Amino acid sequence: MSQFWSPAVQRLTPYVPGEQPQERLIKLNTNENPYPPAPGVGVALRDYAIDHLRLYPDPTSRALRDYLASAYGVSLEETFVGNGSDEVLAFAFQAFFCHDAPLDVPSITYSFYPVYANLYGVTLRKHPLNTQWEVDLEALAGAAERSGVIFANPNAPTGHAHSLDAIEALLKRVTDRVVLVDEAYVDFGAESAIALVNRYPNLLVTGTFSKSRSLAGLRLGYAIGSAELIEGLQRVKDSFNSYPVDSLASLVGIEALKDKAHFNACRDKVITTRERTRQRLEDLGFEVLPSKANFILTQHPDFEGAQLFAGLRERSILVRHFNTSELNNFLRITIGTDDEMDSLIEALEAICG
Amino acid sequence: MSQFWSPAVQRLTPYVPGEQPQERLIKLNTNENPYPPAPGVGVALRDYAIDHLRLYPDPTSRALRDYLASAYGVSLEETFVGNGSDEVLAFAFQAFFCHDAPLDVPSITYSFYPVYANLYGVTLRKHPLNTQWEVDLEALAGAAERSGVIFANPNAPTGHAHSLDAIEALLKRVTDRVVLVDEAYVDFGAESAIALVNRYPNLLVTGTFSKSRSLAGLRLGYAIGSAELIEGLQRVKDSFNSYPVDSLASLVGIEALKDKAHFNACRDKVITTRERTRQRLEDLGFEVLPSKANFILTQHPDFEGAQLFAGLRERSILVRHFNTSELNNFLRITIGTDDEMDSLIEALEAICG
Repeated sequence: MSQFWSPAVQRLTPYVPGEQPQERLIKLNTNENPYPPAPGVGVALRDYAIDHLRLYPDPTSRALRDYLASAYGVSLEETFVGNGSDEVLAFAFQAFFCHDAPLDVPSITYSFYPVYANLYGVTLRKHPLNTQWEVDLEALAGAAERSGVIFANPNAPTGHAHSLDAIEALLKRVTDRVVLVDEAYVDFGAESAIALVNRYPNLLVTGTFSKSRSLAGLRLGYAIGSAELIEGLQRVKDSFNSYPVDSLASLVGIEALKDKAHFNACRDKVITTRERTRQRLEDLGFEVLPSKANFILTQHPDFEGAQLFAGLRERSILVRHFNTSELNNFLRITIGTDDEMDSLIEALEAICG
Repeated sequence: MSQFWSPAVQRLTPYVPGEQPQERLIKLNTNENPYPPAPGVGVALRDYAIDHLRLYPDPTSRALRDYLASAYGVSLEETFVGNGSDEVLAFAFQAFFCHDAPLDVPSITYSFYPVYANLYGVTLRKHPLNTQWEVDLEALAGAAERSGVIFANPNAPTGHAHSLDAIEALLKRVTDRVVLVDEAYVDFGAESAIALVNRYPNLLVTGTFSKSRSLAGLRLGYAIGSAELIEGLQRVKDSFNSYPVDSLASLVGIEALKDKAHFNACRDKVITTRERTRQRLEDLGFEVLPSKANFILTQHPDFEGAQLFAGLRERSILVRHFNTSELNNFLRITIGTDDEMDSLIEALEAICG
């Protein structure tokens, strides 16, 4: 604490991201992609004329948004890009959720949402997951007054995804405030709600280049929604930082969007490895929640989460363990390469055997 | 306006950055450096293993901050980096200036400050410049209650810089709240207040890689201050976006910090060209405010600012004209290469001759 801090900042509880270890570990803790980004990224960086860096970027990121619009079948005015989907989500909280009523949110979801809420003075109304560990869309839509609705689909850290029909049923009920569907993990097997943007002007879909496009190091995220929602995001962004997406990030992002074959191949490998890993964990007696993401949430009836986490760490394998009452017994394990998952299974055999 | 926007966002007046033209122009409007960044930047990008981009960056930007600390003779705990000094300034407004009393600020200064104030609900108390177009430090320090003090040194768009002694005199009077000295342009001839950080725990100095390090396209800025102020910035940053500085920005920033010879050579050329340009403008009858920055603010007794701006634009030269009552008659002209400034002078001779 410091006498110089603003009162609201004294009360903040910042987000703590997964560890970025310096040692050589099998790193299955932050849902990074085990495969490299599109080869065109390397070519573009190699050929880049660095003299361009002396000039400011295009504050509207027009070129990148043109590719994004084309990739998702929407118009330029329906696209927004930012410094990671984390920044896009922060802008969205400020642009849409700062009303008097509470924001409806699942009780177990991306743990940055409560941090944003605290930063912007938004009250959360948390709805427990149902008995299958699924986001309860009925409950999320049930309030008489709200500042909005936010959920991740697939949800984190459970991996469950709702169908487009289920999301549309919620949108039919919630028309007064923004419904934000955070699709950070959508490419690994779920349906995107971007298909509904044309019909629901209050639907905002966010996504990231960090997971399915292997660019966590670059910090590039996006939002797709009606032109009026995009304008709201732009107003906040232009009052905060004119150019959060730098020239290299735009260049690299465009290369990633161009290479659909690479994108599909990496995604398919992750999905295949996920299902293979699920089967092998179940053979070891683990319960594995069905996942449409690039991670799985799993627990074992005979071993505590903390114990398994520590055992894996001793064997140089890093996974994520959440120290909350509801998730304490689980591990969230990122899907790596087949070799990495073989090492994981071997280590768990040794620990549980 | 949209029914879905937060009330505060309806009231925002976003910042409008200088134009980034698509045509080929002599671009003297956004204070970019006419010289390329350090050659090591190109080598680093060429040799970069893109597989690293699949992993998240270090959320603390430790490597870059180590170089920064070394370059400025401070400790790691006294350094902070962000996505341009614009982001760093936004974090500082939220971290330090959200108190009930107003923030003391010069009436003519970087026009993003009122935008931040509006975004975070901070009231500004504006103090006119003195008759020499200098920031009035006496007035800035004179309030009984304040949320803080912010000014740019050198100031924008006037170019005037106060001495370290004058800034220290202010710091002796303002000890209860943060004094933020924005040093975006300090390298072009002014003294840095970083020398005072050890003695004044409420002094925060911000800077950028956009100007003197020729990296406007990269979005990299920093703050230097006491560990308690840096922690305040980190709390806001970690509640907003864990990794605003991406892996490529860190890499490039380190290369720029390493090459002191390149930095000095580019800076010296800009200073020499500035003084040469000033002389030639004065020969044409212009009044030129003394500048310690990489731009000059100038007016002509016989020609209106808008008229000169339009005449230059017709001749494919873009400068900055501010449409406010106080600055309406001035042009702010970025210092380019000698060739670019020769073209400027020729064009002005044609317009005014």
